[in-house]
Amino acid sequence: MKVRNTIKEMAGYRAGREEGQIRMDKNESPFALPEELKDEVIGRLSKLELNRYPDQLGEPLRSKLGAHLGLSSDKLVLGNGSDELITYITQLFRGDRIVIAPPTFSVYGIYGEIAGYDVTEVPLDGSFELQTGKITEDLDGVAAVFLCSPNNPTGNVVPRDELIRILETGTPVVLDEAYWEFAGETNVDLIDEYDNLIVLRTFSKAFGLAGARVGYAVGAEDTIEELLKVKLPYNLNSLSRTAAEVLLDNYGIVEERIGRIVEERERIRGEFEEYAFPSRANFLLMDLDAAEYLEDNGIGVRAFGPPLEDKIRVTVGRKEENDEFIEVMRRYLEDEID
Amino acid sequence: MKVRNTIKEMAGYRAGREEGQIRMDKNESPFALPEELKDEVIGRLSKLELNRYPDQLGEPLRSKLGAHLGLSSDKLVLGNGSDELITYITQLFRGDRIVIAPPTFSVYGIYGEIAGYDVTEVPLDGSFELQTGKITEDLDGVAAVFLCSPNNPTGNVVPRDELIRILETGTPVVLDEAYWEFAGETNVDLIDEYDNLIVLRTFSKAFGLAGARVGYAVGAEDTIEELLKVKLPYNLNSLSRTAAEVLLDNYGIVEERIGRIVEERERIRGEFEEYAFPSRANFLLMDLDAAEYLEDNGIGVRAFGPPLEDKIRVTVGRKEENDEFIEVMRRYLEDEID
Repeated sequence: MKVRNTIKEMAGYRAGREEGQIRMDKNESPFALPEELKDEVIGRLSKLELNRYPDQLGEPLRSKLGAHLGLSSDKLVLGNGSDELITYITQLFRGDRIVIAPPTFSVYGIYGEIAGYDVTEVPLDGSFELQTGKITEDLDGVAAVFLCSPNNPTGNVVPRDELIRILETGTPVVLDEAYWEFAGETNVDLIDEYDNLIVLRTFSKAFGLAGARVGYAVGAEDTIEELLKVKLPYNLNSLSRTAAEVLLDNYGIVEERIGRIVEERERIRGEFEEYAFPSRANFLLMDLDAAEYLEDNGIGVRAFGPPLEDKIRVTVGRKEENDEFIEVMRRYLEDEID
Repeated sequence: MKVRNTIKEMAGYRAGREEGQIRMDKNESPFALPEELKDEVIGRLSKLELNRYPDQLGEPLRSKLGAHLGLSSDKLVLGNGSDELITYITQLFRGDRIVIAPPTFSVYGIYGEIAGYDVTEVPLDGSFELQTGKITEDLDGVAAVFLCSPNNPTGNVVPRDELIRILETGTPVVLDEAYWEFAGETNVDLIDEYDNLIVLRTFSKAFGLAGARVGYAVGAEDTIEELLKVKLPYNLNSLSRTAAEVLLDNYGIVEERIGRIVEERERIRGEFEEYAFPSRANFLLMDLDAAEYLEDNGIGVRAFGPPLEDKIRVTVGRKEENDEFIEVMRRYLEDEID
């Protein structure tokens, strides 16, 4: 087979998770849909004409989302998760390389490479801060700079003035705000000033719809128009779109749950302040090599390769799950550290 | 904005369809889910944990589909429609161009271009037959040849020996069998002999699930392994996957409906034999410039640019829709032609 070397050399799939584990490994929402919302979703799903292709733009979700965000829906593109939108954006701009700031979400680099770009890494510094000067000093041939705020897996946000410094260069910037609801701060308003900014958002985290795969991009109308051209005509299925609509129509529940996650995040951090980095997301990066111990005790967390090989990323769970996590971690610290 | 020229020069979106029309424009299934299946879908959907990411490989659908097709699930990749799989495949193989045989499904060429390949067109001849000799005479630098059988929009199949001639060159061949169920013949068995063959299939046509967006690729295990590497980890959402499972579990209904479509296709063709090309799919290409007339009479069909600017593609509908189509077309032939 004449497969491209870029792809041949890529690693295969990573394994799934074990049954019955407390799942703190994927930054999902720990909350199932409340029964009344489930009924509403089911009621609306049963009215769909599944034999017909979905609306090409994802209406009426797109309009509903525009209204929710207080912006024209012409500034929005819906995707099969924001992952799909990343694959489009890596192919949108002129250039022969993209810039990423690891440790960060791996999809930017992987799909940049698949799209045939070189991937320039400008790592975060020792305090996980962006090296903005290093990024801006050489942007020749850069198709896009990918940033994540709050950053997965470090949990800190990109300071607004640093973002603006990069935007001022005119280079396209993709700002992934998958976790923004847990930080309560966004830079999405900058799309009105900078048409080189695309902000990514998702229904997979705060909205608790990871299984439905719905993400979106926000940008200036001209930018979005170009992105729509590369989007597959029927990329968002009718079922997922409908589920997202119900959540938007019931945003109060989403908001309340965001509050609970933030509260629990701070509670866990308070318990392990010595080890847990501050976080503005729904997870905590912890300076403890405890993944195996946790796994043996029925709790799945995320472990990493270098430079985070001695750390874990712990997704904030429901209160009772967090209680269990705290208990197991206390035992770990007694058994393994002392 | 530093958007790539390839994309800047692309056309924008085409408009949707009008409300209340008889929809014979998109090669969808005209049949809604029967009530008992709808209940089964809804029942299974209500058990999903939507806050959790879907299975990365689309299990249990993938295994179920393997069993249905009588092949190992290691030979299958599921996609968000086969469209998504096309975007991956255009990026999978070494080369700097792809070959297409127009008139054919436009997505191969568009996503080939987006992926940065040149697109070499080797048009079908005057009888819509593949010019196999022309295709095989120059395959230097070709990443993949894209074929569609039955071909959209001409309706004829690629002869097996012609396909084999191309496969024998060793060049990767993508054979889109989106409509194979209506032809009742497939070349999927050739994957065992040729690891340069990828066959695309879909749940959007015979299965009547266009709104769910589920497609799949079949190939040799080694080929599928490489394709899995470029697939987004969570490309198939849980809701759509579940709907497809229900249809597979009730394949008898699908089969019965395929029979009805084929029967109706032949009935329409019999009525307009002078104008309708033979078809092995769920649509008929007709040598009549009647799109506007039909539209004015409440029937949507597909019109084309050159070289098919004086033809229409008519998706076979339900019996009563086809009756209406036949009646309007008879009037058209009286009014416009005589």
